[in-house]
Amino acid sequence: MTERFSQVVRQQADAIWESQHSHPFVRGLGTAELPLPCFQYWLVQDYRFLIDYARLLGLGIARASDLATMTQFAELTRTILSVEMTLHRSYAAQFGISTSQLESTPKSPATQAYTDFLIRTATCADFGELVAALLPCMWGFSEIGQRLAQQPAVPNNPYADWIRTYADPEFAQLAQWCCGLFDRLASEAGESGRLRMAEAFLTSSRLEWWFWDAAWKLETWPI
Amino acid sequence: MTERFSQVVRQQADAIWESQHSHPFVRGLGTAELPLPCFQYWLVQDYRFLIDYARLLGLGIARASDLATMTQFAELTRTILSVEMTLHRSYAAQFGISTSQLESTPKSPATQAYTDFLIRTATCADFGELVAALLPCMWGFSEIGQRLAQQPAVPNNPYADWIRTYADPEFAQLAQWCCGLFDRLASEAGESGRLRMAEAFLTSSRLEWWFWDAAWKLETWPI
Amino acid sequence: MTERFSQVVRQQADAIWESQHSHPFVRGLGTAELPLPCFQYWLVQDYRFLIDYARLLGLGIARASDLATMTQFAELTRTILSVEMTLHRSYAAQFGISTSQLESTPKSPATQAYTDFLIRTATCADFGELVAALLPCMWGFSEIGQRLAQQPAVPNNPYADWIRTYADPEFAQLAQWCCGLFDRLASEAGESGRLRMAEAFLTSSRLEWWFWDAAWKLETWPI
Amino acid sequence: MTERFSQVVRQQADAIWESQHSHPFVRGLGTAELPLPCFQYWLVQDYRFLIDYARLLGLGIARASDLATMTQFAELTRTILSVEMTLHRSYAAQFGISTSQLESTPKSPATQAYTDFLIRTATCADFGELVAALLPCMWGFSEIGQRLAQQPAVPNNPYADWIRTYADPEFAQLAQWCCGLFDRLASEAGESGRLRMAEAFLTSSRLEWWFWDAAWKLETWPI
Repeated sequence: MTERFSQVVRQQADAIWESQHSHPFVRGLGTAELPLPCFQYWLVQDYRFLIDYARLLGLGIARASDLATMTQFAELTRTILSVEMTLHRSYAAQFGISTSQLESTPKSPATQAYTDFLIRTATCADFGELVAALLPCMWGFSEIGQRLAQQPAVPNNPYADWIRTYADPEFAQLAQWCCGLFDRLASEAGESGRLRMAEAFLTSSRLEWWFWDAAWKLETWPI
Repeated sequence: MTERFSQVVRQQADAIWESQHSHPFVRGLGTAELPLPCFQYWLVQDYRFLIDYARLLGLGIARASDLATMTQFAELTRTILSVEMTLHRSYAAQFGISTSQLESTPKSPATQAYTDFLIRTATCADFGELVAALLPCMWGFSEIGQRLAQQPAVPNNPYADWIRTYADPEFAQLAQWCCGLFDRLASEAGESGRLRMAEAFLTSSRLEWWFWDAAWKLETWPI
Repeated sequence: MTERFSQVVRQQADAIWESQHSHPFVRGLGTAELPLPCFQYWLVQDYRFLIDYARLLGLGIARASDLATMTQFAELTRTILSVEMTLHRSYAAQFGISTSQLESTPKSPATQAYTDFLIRTATCADFGELVAALLPCMWGFSEIGQRLAQQPAVPNNPYADWIRTYADPEFAQLAQWCCGLFDRLASEAGESGRLRMAEAFLTSSRLEWWFWDAAWKLETWPI
Repeated sequence: MTERFSQVVRQQADAIWESQHSHPFVRGLGTAELPLPCFQYWLVQDYRFLIDYARLLGLGIARASDLATMTQFAELTRTILSVEMTLHRSYAAQFGISTSQLESTPKSPATQAYTDFLIRTATCADFGELVAALLPCMWGFSEIGQRLAQQPAVPNNPYADWIRTYADPEFAQLAQWCCGLFDRLASEAGESGRLRMAEAFLTSSRLEWWFWDAAWKLETWPI
């Protein structure tokens, strides 16, 4: 494998990823035209999502075969739970969302589907698929943050902080670490293992797209 | 608890369950007015669903604390995989669906969401929630089968076999066994455990509804 | 890989496997010189072991990626729980052990260690390691049964039925199926995956040996 | 339940716990008479143990139902992996053990049995049992550290640092937090859930004892 497998799957998922970049929710973050209710919806659902993302990383700690990967996952899990959740609460407050709203709003169908896919993959599939499933979130946000940051800034964009957060080089570095882990596991796996990793990556990518779209449409349970 | 907890949660989920009974897909099975493509869609997705339902039962074997429950789950898993899947393939053939179609069609969003919820609950939640999550499928199909069988039969209804299968007293007995297990676990659990069991039951009920609705709308991935 | 990987690991574990064949417990089954209390001890512990072996297979159903393997595991799990456990109870009765003894005797340290290793591997390691961990029991019993059956039979050997059971060609076929699955997964895995499979095979082999040795020494918890 | 359930199970396990306090390994830490090879053996095995204890906590993050417990587990996991493992390596170096020895020495039977029990319980049992299984290690070390610290200090005791570490009030606080979580889960569980929690607590206590005893006897695999 001369090409990194993360590049291979990124290419396979290109239509989905480009649909994220051109999605009105994502574009609206850059143009400041994203309606506030959509963003508020996203904030609440992302809070719910992050809790399960931390569970996924906890499963990663349990299942990684080397100490270095376990440690990196543990740092990340701890950062999400002890730092990011607190930031998330105060950031949400700026947009008029209380902590009790964050905690009591049920998961939307998209959030339910995405988080259940992540946890199911993390418990039942091989470890390489666990890593493949978690990658599109980290890498995708980094790519989106960077693309938005490259556009001319809109004055008084209420979403400027959001863009700065995900355009941050430290965040990009984290995504790169995760790509590196994915590439190593792919190179260690056989052909069928790589196929399953690619499938998990594609499914998560699709669920990422849905997550944006659900916020754009303020999706709720039909029943 | 003088009342059986299965009756309590059935009552809590009543709006969802009645929406299933009155759903055009379900009613169309009884009136023979269900369009064939909807039924074909359902057949394919149900095939995919059953495979994961067997996985869920496999996790039930692993996690049940008594030999009798393990054995019952093992009988059920074996029946699904060795008997029902074969019946399903020949039944699908009658409706013009080949085995290769059954095996190659991707899960719809509803199927993906439902099966991932089941497996995630079976691996991470307590055992009572595993049982709560699997109950709405078995019990719901039995209730639907019986209600449809009580209606005056439509001559030459292509779905008559379907109704017979799920109206079967043996199937009802299976659902009753599952309710009994659920009730025992609920009576052994504390209040917070019962709350979580009720939540799992409600979520699975909602996903059951979605499963019918997806087949009615021939739902596909938007991306 | 021109050589089957099962042959490679069988060779790596050869010292352990030969120590099983020459262990006084195993030899005593053939010569009829095994003291009854050792065999009774073994019967009780094997009953406890089988329950967890069924759990392991349940996890195999949940985690196998293809329907054929799931089905085979389900048949096996069902046979253990619905057929073998019953046979085991009546066979134990012939040796003066009641069902309540079978059910109430705690696991010995060896049984606890072996079953916990199996379940831990089945839940946290990759699927290939699950199969590697379960193989030494099935394959080892078949090899032991066959070697004992090749020896001149001792008249009135109380363990003759035991030998017949495990020398049975049907049992050998099951072990062969399991070897075939192991070989396929090994050929699909990368080098590091195969290394981990070999490790799981070796650990289970070691625990198999300990299981015989514990029965020979009537091992109990020191505390 | 007027009495805390942690007190109930501590009482049930009293014989095992007192056998730990009076074990020559533990007493030898206080009297400075513990032979160095026993302590070196313990250091290496404890290093292996801690890695799996972190995995257990990772599973705790995944399975806890509330954010506060998840966060506490994440802090603890991160501390073990990012702080304690490093301390452990430099502490081991003082006793002549290199990092490569720490990493390459296989688990002893006791370590294998204990860690596999922990992980198996954490993946298959209910969450209350996961917490019950992890408690004896934390609480036991705190109790042992405090008892040893209450004895008159032996001058130049090479194990003085060890005693200080586990006698530390911060460590006691951690054990207390863990007891509090255990008590809350016990009060939320039903009778059968509490029984299973007590069993997990007892098994872990027994395995704790074995862990000391293995180091005292420099236990190795018989094969």
